[in-house]
Amino acid sequence: MQQKGWTGYFFEDFTLGMKLKGPTPRTMTDGEIALYIALTGDRTPHFCGPRRLIHPLIIFHTVFGQTVRQISLNARANLGYADMRWIAPVFVGDTLSIYMEIIGLKENSSRDSGVVYVKNTAYKQDGTEVMRFTRWVMLRKRTSHPTPFLDQPHLPSLPKIVPPEELALFEETLPTFEQCGGRWAFEDYQIGERIFHYDGMTMNDSDQMTFTRLFQNSAKVHFDRHKMNGTPLLYGGLAISHGYAQAFNGLEMRLGLRALNSGHHTHPTHSGDTLYTFTDVLDKASLPDPSVGALRLRMIVVKNLDPSEFSESGQTFPITQEDPHKPGKTQYPSHIVLDLDYWEILPRQAALIA
Amino acid sequence: MQQKGWTGYFFEDFTLGMKLKGPTPRTMTDGEIALYIALTGDRTPHFCGPRRLIHPLIIFHTVFGQTVRQISLNARANLGYADMRWIAPVFVGDTLSIYMEIIGLKENSSRDSGVVYVKNTAYKQDGTEVMRFTRWVMLRKRTSHPTPFLDQPHLPSLPKIVPPEELALFEETLPTFEQCGGRWAFEDYQIGERIFHYDGMTMNDSDQMTFTRLFQNSAKVHFDRHKMNGTPLLYGGLAISHGYAQAFNGLEMRLGLRALNSGHHTHPTHSGDTLYTFTDVLDKASLPDPSVGALRLRMIVVKNLDPSEFSESGQTFPITQEDPHKPGKTQYPSHIVLDLDYWEILPRQAALIA
Amino acid sequence: MQQKGWTGYFFEDFTLGMKLKGPTPRTMTDGEIALYIALTGDRTPHFCGPRRLIHPLIIFHTVFGQTVRQISLNARANLGYADMRWIAPVFVGDTLSIYMEIIGLKENSSRDSGVVYVKNTAYKQDGTEVMRFTRWVMLRKRTSHPTPFLDQPHLPSLPKIVPPEELALFEETLPTFEQCGGRWAFEDYQIGERIFHYDGMTMNDSDQMTFTRLFQNSAKVHFDRHKMNGTPLLYGGLAISHGYAQAFNGLEMRLGLRALNSGHHTHPTHSGDTLYTFTDVLDKASLPDPSVGALRLRMIVVKNLDPSEFSESGQTFPITQEDPHKPGKTQYPSHIVLDLDYWEILPRQAALIA
Repeated sequence: MQQKGWTGYFFEDFTLGMKLKGPTPRTMTDGEIALYIALTGDRTPHFCGPRRLIHPLIIFHTVFGQTVRQISLNARANLGYADMRWIAPVFVGDTLSIYMEIIGLKENSSRDSGVVYVKNTAYKQDGTEVMRFTRWVMLRKRTSHPTPFLDQPHLPSLPKIVPPEELALFEETLPTFEQCGGRWAFEDYQIGERIFHYDGMTMNDSDQMTFTRLFQNSAKVHFDRHKMNGTPLLYGGLAISHGYAQAFNGLEMRLGLRALNSGHHTHPTHSGDTLYTFTDVLDKASLPDPSVGALRLRMIVVKNLDPSEFSESGQTFPITQEDPHKPGKTQYPSHIVLDLDYWEILPRQAALIA
Repeated sequence: MQQKGWTGYFFEDFTLGMKLKGPTPRTMTDGEIALYIALTGDRTPHFCGPRRLIHPLIIFHTVFGQTVRQISLNARANLGYADMRWIAPVFVGDTLSIYMEIIGLKENSSRDSGVVYVKNTAYKQDGTEVMRFTRWVMLRKRTSHPTPFLDQPHLPSLPKIVPPEELALFEETLPTFEQCGGRWAFEDYQIGERIFHYDGMTMNDSDQMTFTRLFQNSAKVHFDRHKMNGTPLLYGGLAISHGYAQAFNGLEMRLGLRALNSGHHTHPTHSGDTLYTFTDVLDKASLPDPSVGALRLRMIVVKNLDPSEFSESGQTFPITQEDPHKPGKTQYPSHIVLDLDYWEILPRQAALIA
Repeated sequence: MQQKGWTGYFFEDFTLGMKLKGPTPRTMTDGEIALYIALTGDRTPHFCGPRRLIHPLIIFHTVFGQTVRQISLNARANLGYADMRWIAPVFVGDTLSIYMEIIGLKENSSRDSGVVYVKNTAYKQDGTEVMRFTRWVMLRKRTSHPTPFLDQPHLPSLPKIVPPEELALFEETLPTFEQCGGRWAFEDYQIGERIFHYDGMTMNDSDQMTFTRLFQNSAKVHFDRHKMNGTPLLYGGLAISHGYAQAFNGLEMRLGLRALNSGHHTHPTHSGDTLYTFTDVLDKASLPDPSVGALRLRMIVVKNLDPSEFSESGQTFPITQEDPHKPGKTQYPSHIVLDLDYWEILPRQAALIA
């Protein structure tokens, strides 16, 4: 008789165009909001007030968790994200589900693994699309027998950035400077500016397990110390959320990320690591709504080294360095754990004064 | 003057037929649901969606916690459960209370402790009975002076199993295969089948303390490292909930346990232990509602040894072994921490297709 | 360009009469209530039932957290509280904000720090004042250049106690003895009585970080193990809440603290410390509402030493001892971490019987 417990797909099990849906449709509540605050310390007023708007990263983690059973139980690494868009606001009481489609396959030359590209689309109960994103993940193969995708990989065409004119506009209730404790509107940020967020946060297994379970992400590597030689891998999403929570300091008026152009987990984190964050302003864009503008930001999360202290010496904290083993190539220094390129929405001065 | 702080009853304080009620009536909310998911990772769709149905184990832990102050502050061990029934569904907004009655007393031959049998009945605010169960617990005595229950123990008559025809039927909203990520309806399970659930979960003091406090269980042994020589005993209910959460994998369409025939905490667990779970299908029963059936399941929770890996060698994982000190008697191997025999409700194929 | 990340005020930045407001207006929900129970184990029925009344200490921690960014990012120590009053009940759905005013300044003779006295007033969304308190905090100076407040400190006049006739009276729904598991009404307590609460609770970094983040308190010393040499300082408010949660045992009928006369964090606590609590009855007062009375209580929280066991030997547990370095002066023994003097409301016998 077939074992009923599910052990997950391997690289060979996926086909181009394959469609999947994972458990569990999840209703968003005040409980998820309070837990998200308790686990990250995020202070963005937009997501703490009476409107009960769900934080974009709560939406992301919830629907990401729904993909794990079908996509990544046998993952070696979660390689990257692209073309992530938050399309409609989500409120307490909404129920989220995700649909997945396999849009790319590439077997690695090692023949023991391959990369699967997955397009994800999340809906709420009335059929409204609320979010979409593509992620790619390295999956183990069942055997070393080659697949057609060794010689003929199929790679999807993915945008490097989400064009700002395609950012969804929500009906916003703007916060005040007083509510945010901040002083900076859209116009105050300049391209090329670097913002240090100063706060450091030390990770621990209990917090990361609770966070990962909150989003019903069942990847074993985060939970089983027995099999992980005592050091479970922290869920990469935790670094995203802690980085974003720390980035409140200096981006206090923000209304929430609206698109993620690209994202890479560059090194793993473990219990005991302390995370620090800084942000580079990459670009600015006007939007059809004259009360707000979009900042393209690069958020870098660093472990066990405070980049603001490093920079006090007058040096610029490097995001990439030369790869000693590959002349002419660059790599991320080992203390950088996350490189995220996203569009953030901020109010304009005029709208705040009016 | 009498000390006002309560130090709990001892064996001698209980009398047959004694009735008790403990603090604290507790209102069920979205907060309890979100925390239960965050602490266990349970993904059963029935308890995550817009109906805001309260998980049967949230109900159990809540009302169990209400018994601790009156019954088990001076417990040596929580010995077993029988005749546990979930009688009516509980939703967000309902407030739960418990009534206790002493139905059995037996002093141990050591004269330093005795066993108290307690019948527990839980109600919601409108007087509807929502749950009942019997548990027995070993309590310390105040003195070595013998009681009448040394020579004449009074043992209640308890059913070995809850007859399936007595299982309460709730008005169910059936999940779909898509929502659950599962493939198996009631008919797909066979008596004698063993289901491995694969996921391992490592316990830690923070999670177990948070879980135990969530249910206002005030038993000191779970919280005071100073007096427990650095290793608090994990609340036994935690193993029940983690085992059940893991058992989602292979029982995805389940609608929730409806009765517990028997339950035994066979060995203690501590921070650092990793729990794995498997389930044996003991029996199947038809129910008056033709859309569902009942599976009688035996859930075994194991620490620090993955029973699915053990079984890959072709051996059957043993639940009991010969007791080396008592020839002819059996005992639980030291890595088995929980043996639970319960009735689970699952949809039938026809109801899912219709 | 000015760094946008905020690094906090120093002593020199404050002026008398300066008014401030910090982030983040926060809506109280079932999520906050459930998390507070899960993190403290508080069992007071008044704050667990269907009325969805917010625990006075949830209100305190929430609005305290809102002051950190403006007041205490560069704090050396949180020295004390006075004149703290809960003025109106807060329910699920209410949104809390705080206003601060600098009412005293005193530079220390060391010239590297000074004490800032802050009057805090918290409101809910409709403008109702719900709470106020004064706290004073030692802040680092930017430079050793003296300020006018070295020679001419300005110290506010603060009441030693909140007069009981000024305690706010809420429309109360009294609990029953059954709901609380308690046996004692207002009349049963006597001035001079000492109540041991027996329960011990061991602290850990995960729980304290989650608790502190829940209230959006961003003081770095609680979160950054890297900079704190591996031992973050526990948020002092955690000892307040665990002490109060433990004090349920012996004060089961309580309706919640209504004023705090004074409070001192006397020694720091760290992960691994086990907290025990006892309470001395300092005074009793009648109130205009004949169904309730006010007890003035002194709550002492002790680390790593159970005061009830100490007292079994017949000795009285000392709250202060002679300072070996300052003859004639007293100090707190090193295991006492909190000394809190507050007014608690309890039902009278007649109101419970009626």
